Amino acid sequence: MLPLLLVVGWSPDQRALRILDQRFLPAAEVMRDLVTLNEVIDAIRTLAVRGAPAIGVAAGIGLVVALEHESEGRGVRAREILSRYAERLTASRPTAVNLSWAVRRLLAVAAVAGDDTLLIALRAEAEAIRAEDVAMCDAIARFGLELIPDGTRVLTHCNAGALATAGIGTALAPVHLAHREGRRVHVYADETRPLRQGARLTAWELQRAGIPVTVLPDGAAASLLRSGAVDVVIVGADRITANGDVANKIGTYGVALAARAHGIPFYVAAPWSTIDPATHTGADIEIEHRHADELGDLPIGTRVWNPAFDVTPHELVRGYLTDRGFVKPPFSGVTGA
Amino acid sequence: MLPLLLVVGWSPDQRALRILDQRFLPAAEVMRDLVTLNEVIDAIRTLAVRGAPAIGVAAGIGLVVALEHESEGRGVRAREILSRYAERLTASRPTAVNLSWAVRRLLAVAAVAGDDTLLIALRAEAEAIRAEDVAMCDAIARFGLELIPDGTRVLTHCNAGALATAGIGTALAPVHLAHREGRRVHVYADETRPLRQGARLTAWELQRAGIPVTVLPDGAAASLLRSGAVDVVIVGADRITANGDVANKIGTYGVALAARAHGIPFYVAAPWSTIDPATHTGADIEIEHRHADELGDLPIGTRVWNPAFDVTPHELVRGYLTDRGFVKPPFSGVTGA
Repeated sequence: MLPLLLVVGWSPDQRALRILDQRFLPAAEVMRDLVTLNEVIDAIRTLAVRGAPAIGVAAGIGLVVALEHESEGRGVRAREILSRYAERLTASRPTAVNLSWAVRRLLAVAAVAGDDTLLIALRAEAEAIRAEDVAMCDAIARFGLELIPDGTRVLTHCNAGALATAGIGTALAPVHLAHREGRRVHVYADETRPLRQGARLTAWELQRAGIPVTVLPDGAAASLLRSGAVDVVIVGADRITANGDVANKIGTYGVALAARAHGIPFYVAAPWSTIDPATHTGADIEIEHRHADELGDLPIGTRVWNPAFDVTPHELVRGYLTDRGFVKPPFSGVTGA
Repeated sequence: MLPLLLVVGWSPDQRALRILDQRFLPAAEVMRDLVTLNEVIDAIRTLAVRGAPAIGVAAGIGLVVALEHESEGRGVRAREILSRYAERLTASRPTAVNLSWAVRRLLAVAAVAGDDTLLIALRAEAEAIRAEDVAMCDAIARFGLELIPDGTRVLTHCNAGALATAGIGTALAPVHLAHREGRRVHVYADETRPLRQGARLTAWELQRAGIPVTVLPDGAAASLLRSGAVDVVIVGADRITANGDVANKIGTYGVALAARAHGIPFYVAAPWSTIDPATHTGADIEIEHRHADELGDLPIGTRVWNPAFDVTPHELVRGYLTDRGFVKPPFSGVTGA
């Protein structure tokens, strides 16, 4: 299935990493072609490209085009600089697991390729990472389509959409597919403070696709769920533990509690690779705390509690939608990607 | 008990309404003295003064000083302009019930006063409204002190503090009193989108009083309550219905659900006059919906769901703290102020 828009991929001449620069959203749709390693690193570091799957794709294509550019297509030269480039790229955003995962895939390919075919092999692997991401989104969309009969009203939190992937997203993938198939669907998007991904990104992506979207303050979600305006809640996930607990953007847990209080089904949609069987429960997840500046102007001396994620316990999750279909915990014993 | 700071009251020479202009908070503490009716109306309309009790006090003092100014102290002249001034003042913020209530109190006094004593009688009534508000806050503080033993950690939402009254606030009144009595208390303040009253006003007021305060995004409240960092939740109320349902700032209901999920007691603190026995349940309250602009920058064409208030059902409320002590629903049969 064609992506809705190019968020991360090859430039038309295949010589550059093309990205939609998300720093300018929703004000402007700015496409940028990146060729040097510094340009790629800068884009990842400044969140011009964001979302775990999209970062992995950007790292793969970005490393290949930077190597081709710097080596002028000479495999021997490319091999000389590969490990230094790989290291610098990985260090640009150390907590992004998809970034290091994509770089490791390229390094593994390089280890078995000859100098003559090195750049061709790396390019093929980067394209495979991209194509697999598109296919992952498509699979989530197809399995999840049953959640979106005609006329469905969906509540989501943060942005687990096309803007976070090379394809049509994760939590929003079934919404995009349902819309393409002519079903009516309305999305309620939590603003998602402090960084407003719902208001800036989810609203923009859905508007651009022609899907009606209504933004609400995070604090209004419980009232919206009580009002009867929502049929189903679908959110993404940063990590799913062995027992089915879900780490996702701060605010997800409160939405899950309100959904339970009003009998609205709460689904988590994510790549199968998000399941981490080595982590037993949500209590084992270390939560990153972010800078006070994200909260905006505050009186001098005010402290801030600004966790990046929260944990939704498995009891509140009606179902787990992945590219392998709906799956059920416990996930101990399964193999992550 | 002395107010913590002058939010609304008389100027030192008694000739003006003195307010703390809240439009400049938290950046600057700007005091303004208002004398003409236009100045008073402008302050109420632009939310330079806000909070139901504070608006009532401002209306009372503001009407008196404006009448004295315009009539140059002549009772006959003051009576000529009284009804026109009263009407214009009431129209400046039609939904503020304390505004029309304060104006009606002055009109009732004027109806029985002679021309010679008119301005003296009005001045005495405006001062009574102010003093009653201070006493109301003090009473809430004293009854509520038992909720704040030494070391208590309180979560609140929006601003039901000194900045909303002529005294030490409603929901924050017991916190201010506990602090004055030397008890250690820490307040967690929800940011309270869209208008950020928690981040701008509650944080400022507590910082200024020397009470430690931590601001969090609204979506983080459920995780904070789970973390064990909070002993008690205390919020204000805009209206309490006969069965005990509570209308308060949007986001309150979600906090109440999360408090119940983690066994944290959830209290509502408000003037006795907030109880509205004529309204049976929360379902009978019409919720005001506010402008999309409050949500900030959004993609063009995005709709917004922005209710000003939500309703917390009585089942989630551990107790109702008023200036008459802790009270229990049903409130049908009681007499509001």
